[in-house]
Amino acid sequence: MKIAQVSPLFESVPPKLYGGTERVVSYLTEALVDHGHEVTLFASGDSVTRAKLVSHTQEALRLNPKVIDPLAFHILQLQEVIERAHEFDIIHFHTDYLHFPASQLLQRPCITTLHGRLDIPELKPLYDKFDTQAIISISNSQRNPLPQAAWMDTVYHGLPKDLYQAIETKDDYVAFIGRISPEKRPDRAIEIAEKAGCKIKIAAKIDKADLSYFHDHIKHLIQKPFVEYIGEIGESEKNDFLGKAKALLFPIDWPEPFGMVMIEAMACGTPVIAYAHGSVPEIIEHGKNGYLVSSVEEAAYAIEKASALDPRIIRRLFEERFSSDRMAQDYVRNYELLCNRHRISVSHHSKKFDSIDSKLTA
Amino acid sequence: MKIAQVSPLFESVPPKLYGGTERVVSYLTEALVDHGHEVTLFASGDSVTRAKLVSHTQEALRLNPKVIDPLAFHILQLQEVIERAHEFDIIHFHTDYLHFPASQLLQRPCITTLHGRLDIPELKPLYDKFDTQAIISISNSQRNPLPQAAWMDTVYHGLPKDLYQAIETKDDYVAFIGRISPEKRPDRAIEIAEKAGCKIKIAAKIDKADLSYFHDHIKHLIQKPFVEYIGEIGESEKNDFLGKAKALLFPIDWPEPFGMVMIEAMACGTPVIAYAHGSVPEIIEHGKNGYLVSSVEEAAYAIEKASALDPRIIRRLFEERFSSDRMAQDYVRNYELLCNRHRISVSHHSKKFDSIDSKLTA
Repeated sequence: MKIAQVSPLFESVPPKLYGGTERVVSYLTEALVDHGHEVTLFASGDSVTRAKLVSHTQEALRLNPKVIDPLAFHILQLQEVIERAHEFDIIHFHTDYLHFPASQLLQRPCITTLHGRLDIPELKPLYDKFDTQAIISISNSQRNPLPQAAWMDTVYHGLPKDLYQAIETKDDYVAFIGRISPEKRPDRAIEIAEKAGCKIKIAAKIDKADLSYFHDHIKHLIQKPFVEYIGEIGESEKNDFLGKAKALLFPIDWPEPFGMVMIEAMACGTPVIAYAHGSVPEIIEHGKNGYLVSSVEEAAYAIEKASALDPRIIRRLFEERFSSDRMAQDYVRNYELLCNRHRISVSHHSKKFDSIDSKLTA
Repeated sequence: MKIAQVSPLFESVPPKLYGGTERVVSYLTEALVDHGHEVTLFASGDSVTRAKLVSHTQEALRLNPKVIDPLAFHILQLQEVIERAHEFDIIHFHTDYLHFPASQLLQRPCITTLHGRLDIPELKPLYDKFDTQAIISISNSQRNPLPQAAWMDTVYHGLPKDLYQAIETKDDYVAFIGRISPEKRPDRAIEIAEKAGCKIKIAAKIDKADLSYFHDHIKHLIQKPFVEYIGEIGESEKNDFLGKAKALLFPIDWPEPFGMVMIEAMACGTPVIAYAHGSVPEIIEHGKNGYLVSSVEEAAYAIEKASALDPRIIRRLFEERFSSDRMAQDYVRNYELLCNRHRISVSHHSKKFDSIDSKLTA
């Protein structure tokens, strides 16, 4: 198929630093190329891809301090997509709702993956209005605030199979990775480790917005003797950090639409002990790739049980359910469905025109 | 005519506090109603107008701390305009470029007034692409960074004639009004007054962003004996404040696309002494409604000359050039031009269809 992928321009595809959406767009794009599709990627100019790259920005907007008005570049990108729409069989947007008003102009089937949190009050009237746009959720739980939207499917994120290797021999610690922020609950992770009498390693960045939270609530906790704070780590260090842990602690306090770190741990053969918020119960199969818990006591108790799970089985579950290969297959199935619907609707129209043509030429 | 006015949703129309664009949209809308047009105003729900109000937000977005994503409301507004476009002869946007990609869908003539500063690098590629959108500048000088855009006309802002009265008897001070910010140069205004041996009254608000500028550069200056700092003033106090001043000082340091305060002073019969940046030379006629200067010395010297100008002549110049009545007339002229162009283009198309129809019915 001829597929357009339309990425946000805030980070490159893949991102040089953090950037959830652009990272998934990258994995999906490369997997579609692997499957033999002809993919065009609309993304920032410093993106790296085997697809055809179309860009109006030299570099990712977040890295360019001169950019005052990022919307201008996204509007420009949208116009480029409109003008080139006829080149594609399907157009896949990852840029929220910006294209909805113009989507009638595209005359091609469009599909939109919503990557973010949807429990923002102003989205309700928006999706009341745009209730025919084919959209994809990244978990079933993500849909809850917007039942009125035209949900087509849930497609879970996936990682390239060769990104991480399973590590079967574990060291004696549990892992926490993410931002130091109230909704990620690093304090709760430390409490769980303390209760279990277990060492915890914390790999986390501290955003400016979270500095006062860090100073007021976390700084004194990471000075405890069983806590090792190792700061922010890169992709290359993640395999060891996650893979050697007895378990990943994911004691979140918010409806995370999809927790990438859970499938990263799975790819490394590491079980996850997680609070059952948001997408968590859809990713963690209790007793297979981890444990769903609802208290510090349950979580502490689950660490030993989790150590008994087989890393090879956890890895196999990852390969079956959360590879970028599977993600690409899921999307292609939805693309084909939409293209068929579109063909039927167009042929319905063109039959009308055929009858006019035959009268004209008669 | 049936006219749609599409306002930003950040402030109500008119704004309760500061809000340049929404204020002009209000003056224009009410003047068009006065002229007998059927006007529909797309604006926040707390707007007050004699036009028909269409809104999806109960209150202005800037006043609602719960609003996380103001773009969602503007996209919803755009969709509403698209769906109701057939009700109007012309659609007048004041919402920058957001509607450009969807504008083909409107099937009605569209005109856009750009209210802001245009020397932002990312706007250049945007207007390279959208070089056929009919746009209106609020001064000729505003156009400089974007010569490639399809500029249709300059329409200067205007005020209702009864908003302010000319005051002929002046008190012994010069006035400064605006934000305390580096580009407005309150420091320079104080220096001018000092050089002229003249009292200065400063009516100005201090935004959070400008607090350190105020403390570092202005606070010690306003303690001088000839300076009276009176804080932020409302509309009701402006007439006296501006009208009783010998002159308004407008010693700006940036290309202001249109300085509303200059025409407010004119409406009060008060001359303006201004640095010739941005729109200033288009508004100030040297020796008639004020003086154009390029140094503190020139400005100080101009105060006495300005005192000799006749407040009644300054007021007459305001009424001729900067009333909302005149602004509405200018816009209607442009609306009519666009409607005629559109009619010609549509009739060109429909002739083709007429010939198909006649073949079909033959």
